[in-house]
Amino acid sequence: MRKTIKVIESSESERLAQIYLVAATIFCEKGYDATSMSDIAEAVGITKAGIYHYVKSKQDLLFKIMSFGMETLEKDVIIPAKGIADAETRLKAIIANHARLITEGSTPNGHNPVTIINDEVGGLTPAQRRKIINRKRVYLDLLRETLNQLKNEGKLKDVNITVATFSLFGMLLWVSRWYRSNGSITVDQLVEEMSKIALGGILRPQARLSKK
Amino acid sequence: MRKTIKVIESSESERLAQIYLVAATIFCEKGYDATSMSDIAEAVGITKAGIYHYVKSKQDLLFKIMSFGMETLEKDVIIPAKGIADAETRLKAIIANHARLITEGSTPNGHNPVTIINDEVGGLTPAQRRKIINRKRVYLDLLRETLNQLKNEGKLKDVNITVATFSLFGMLLWVSRWYRSNGSITVDQLVEEMSKIALGGILRPQARLSKK
Repeated sequence: MRKTIKVIESSESERLAQIYLVAATIFCEKGYDATSMSDIAEAVGITKAGIYHYVKSKQDLLFKIMSFGMETLEKDVIIPAKGIADAETRLKAIIANHARLITEGSTPNGHNPVTIINDEVGGLTPAQRRKIINRKRVYLDLLRETLNQLKNEGKLKDVNITVATFSLFGMLLWVSRWYRSNGSITVDQLVEEMSKIALGGILRPQARLSKK
Repeated sequence: MRKTIKVIESSESERLAQIYLVAATIFCEKGYDATSMSDIAEAVGITKAGIYHYVKSKQDLLFKIMSFGMETLEKDVIIPAKGIADAETRLKAIIANHARLITEGSTPNGHNPVTIINDEVGGLTPAQRRKIINRKRVYLDLLRETLNQLKNEGKLKDVNITVATFSLFGMLLWVSRWYRSNGSITVDQLVEEMSKIALGGILRPQARLSKK
């Protein structure tokens, strides 16, 4: 009995994840406003009534996609990073896990519930928007604290921490716009190169050499 | 007579620039699909009929905004950069001019016809989209060629040029999402810090030291 319930739960959550991914892809391609619930239902392969079993409205769906994207970011990037005491190791883990999350979770066109978080906040209610912004702030704070710790350890170059934090963020978020999993760069290469460029930009050469 | 014509031309083009800036701001805030021509006319302070004197349709307006943004990027960033023979000096000029363009041309909320180029391409016709993408490609090619030249001069770190090009691009484009002209960082500081981080990430320390 318990097993059956588990199977049902898992299949429901898998179906939900599938709806989010499909809807995120269509929102990215057509734009949120131009997408109808029928478009999404058709792409998922269920009836329009079927989709209302999972979500109340298109706006509710957008908020759920963003919340799902944030949960994935928290599970794959933020929580593992918070478990790492050494700031340099933590920064490397954040860059690697974020780049992996964007590239591996994405469709061939590069769409992914995580990427929509930054592009369609205008479609949310003010209360929903605040919730998403607050969750994003946790991530920005983690990056900023990590850079502050590196500064205190004498490992950071003489760079402004706000500019460095957002530059890292921009580099990482932009990956979803250009990286294609069927292109010539593997995910491992991408992670290694982005790490090299980002760490080279903000850490003192000495600090990095001493780690090798 | 000639002078009068010139004055009229200038005031028409100023009015157009104003329409583009206002429309870009509303598109960024409300989303392209949710914005009506009446919203834009009202914000500009002209009648709805008045706005159709300048643009044929909302889609035409979006394409004109993007074309205007690309023209600004060409005039302020691409053309000056192409006149610089030394690759390192050229790269510094690209970073500085792009960061200045995004920050100085923007409204207090950070909206700017240049930034919309990347966020609303879905609203264009396929033919319009191709035109904008081709113009963007010219910029990407310029960045990539500059990095290739730096590589040939032995100044580039051992980094993948595609990843480096798009990382620079991501850092620069993200500025419009976080930088606020009424915040604590001046435009000069922003330009200096971004240059430090970007060049530190991709150039060999020796190459940069030799220039000081």
